[in-house]
Amino acid sequence: MAKSSKVPTSVDIARAAGMSQATVSRALNGGVVSEETRERILAISKSLGYSPNAVARGLVTSRTGLVGVVVSDITNPFYPEFLEEIGRSLTDRDQQMLLQNAATGDQQGAVELLLQQRVDGIIFMAATSTLGIIRDLVRRRFPIVLANRTIELPCDSVQGDNLAGAAAIVDHLYGLGHRRFAVIEGTATTSTAGQRTRGFVARLEEHGLELRDELVVRTDFRYDQAFAGAQRLLDRRYPPSAIFCHNDLLAIAALNAIKDRGLRIPDDVSVVGFDNTLQSRWESIDLTTVDQPLAAMAARSVELLGDRLAEPDLPPRHEVFPAELIVRGSTGRRRPRPRQG
Amino acid sequence: MAKSSKVPTSVDIARAAGMSQATVSRALNGGVVSEETRERILAISKSLGYSPNAVARGLVTSRTGLVGVVVSDITNPFYPEFLEEIGRSLTDRDQQMLLQNAATGDQQGAVELLLQQRVDGIIFMAATSTLGIIRDLVRRRFPIVLANRTIELPCDSVQGDNLAGAAAIVDHLYGLGHRRFAVIEGTATTSTAGQRTRGFVARLEEHGLELRDELVVRTDFRYDQAFAGAQRLLDRRYPPSAIFCHNDLLAIAALNAIKDRGLRIPDDVSVVGFDNTLQSRWESIDLTTVDQPLAAMAARSVELLGDRLAEPDLPPRHEVFPAELIVRGSTGRRRPRPRQG
Repeated sequence: MAKSSKVPTSVDIARAAGMSQATVSRALNGGVVSEETRERILAISKSLGYSPNAVARGLVTSRTGLVGVVVSDITNPFYPEFLEEIGRSLTDRDQQMLLQNAATGDQQGAVELLLQQRVDGIIFMAATSTLGIIRDLVRRRFPIVLANRTIELPCDSVQGDNLAGAAAIVDHLYGLGHRRFAVIEGTATTSTAGQRTRGFVARLEEHGLELRDELVVRTDFRYDQAFAGAQRLLDRRYPPSAIFCHNDLLAIAALNAIKDRGLRIPDDVSVVGFDNTLQSRWESIDLTTVDQPLAAMAARSVELLGDRLAEPDLPPRHEVFPAELIVRGSTGRRRPRPRQG
Repeated sequence: MAKSSKVPTSVDIARAAGMSQATVSRALNGGVVSEETRERILAISKSLGYSPNAVARGLVTSRTGLVGVVVSDITNPFYPEFLEEIGRSLTDRDQQMLLQNAATGDQQGAVELLLQQRVDGIIFMAATSTLGIIRDLVRRRFPIVLANRTIELPCDSVQGDNLAGAAAIVDHLYGLGHRRFAVIEGTATTSTAGQRTRGFVARLEEHGLELRDELVVRTDFRYDQAFAGAQRLLDRRYPPSAIFCHNDLLAIAALNAIKDRGLRIPDDVSVVGFDNTLQSRWESIDLTTVDQPLAAMAARSVELLGDRLAEPDLPPRHEVFPAELIVRGSTGRRRPRPRQG
């Protein structure tokens, strides 16, 4: 039954033992309790269906019930939506979220703070391949889960099917007659950016097309960079007729840049995002994008971390969730457009 | 100097004492340390400029460096922007945010979880006058700050000038020729909703106008409720020519509802929000709204909490920050519009 993979918390045990949580806590933290009490706690825990190993680990590691969550830009609407789901799943497990919002470069410090607070594990929503701290944690066998990102490391991860999502975008745009594509990319060292471009280019090649380097805009998943980049694309002698953006925030920046230039969407330019955020559904945005099952991905991230806490020796699991193209008003048939003046 | 109002942390003292943080922590937590060590810690703390009282309190209360933050809907873009600033300010003070995202009705449980984690204090970003738990905390003299909200309670609070902001909106719309106003309100038990309507109605009365009850839509600050409410307003035999919404999220819902009905903004209807969120500045939204100095308000919330931790007996401070109308494209001159069919 499910209980056998759970780690005992001081609350569970205190309730069953009829002891104060403080006493159980002290025992779990290796503090001063009588040998009798310690043995009683072990016995009660077993009777609750906890494996003796898990109890022993609990006694040694003294779980805090805190889970660190690291995001890189909480004002990117993708994160609050994902965080809301993560929070819900943690609450269901009597765990609490210790949130760190840190730009990619500052995550070392953020992780150190989380470790100081003795979090039981960390869910990274903004992992990049250059983050040495993640390698360190994996090496030290500290429980982590990479959510919405992967790195070539032996640790648990959850992500959407970026390759398939990007391929679906190509098929959709190709079917509308588009042949000249631009891409506004996110942070190069993230798996999301890497996979979304790779999936896009691979499918273009199947259609006998290529992605021209001068039509690729590189950003750090920042709105302002995408806005400026989109305007540079529009100002080209031969602008693209369709722009694929690595997430909805970048796509909305592109939409706004297009509006700012007085051009029409999708008549002059089609735009596609990725994430299906709440904003993308607004009538004033109406963005074609790729949906990922956020709630399921968030719940699974929390579950993988729970499994890892209970069984540190489990082999790492990499789970990929289906991505689905959602067609809205920001994409349409390619129309010849008048050259810029 | 500033230090005298600070509470010692185990990190500060450990550094100065050349002891391990674990030892200092143990002393602060009332754990087993020699009397000599405890006295040395007191002496060092005094030399750092901490008042003996603050040290004594520190020894008793065993600060965790954790600050609880309670929001009611993290997908409302106002919160991530405010949280980003709160997080920055806490980090500057070596404190960490323990975030709880809880619908207004569930905040009792959220607060209990925070107290279990022994947070030093709580910043409420979603306080309502019906939240008994806040009264309890104030009665128990637990350190809290109400950010962006006030309640008639003796505790610290920070808010924007809702009355002045709402009055500025009336003046702006009145100047554009509008005479028939609707309001889409937020949660009735919040100070923000109460003050924004009060300020609006008071200024209307100065212009010899009134707010008609049938043109008031009541929501819980939820997008869907505002969207439906705006459509009901538009479907009236005599629809309003201008809609004041209690925050940007509600205003964006109204904009989208207007678009969905095939009406033009601002030619058919003017819309005003409150908060000046990042979204309100988007070209595709272009919302007239009221700016509040978020960064300053967030920093001040954290500062007030710090002061309260250092000096529990300080009289409560209620601070009001200036609000400024930002005029964008969602408001324009009133035009006679054809009656609905």
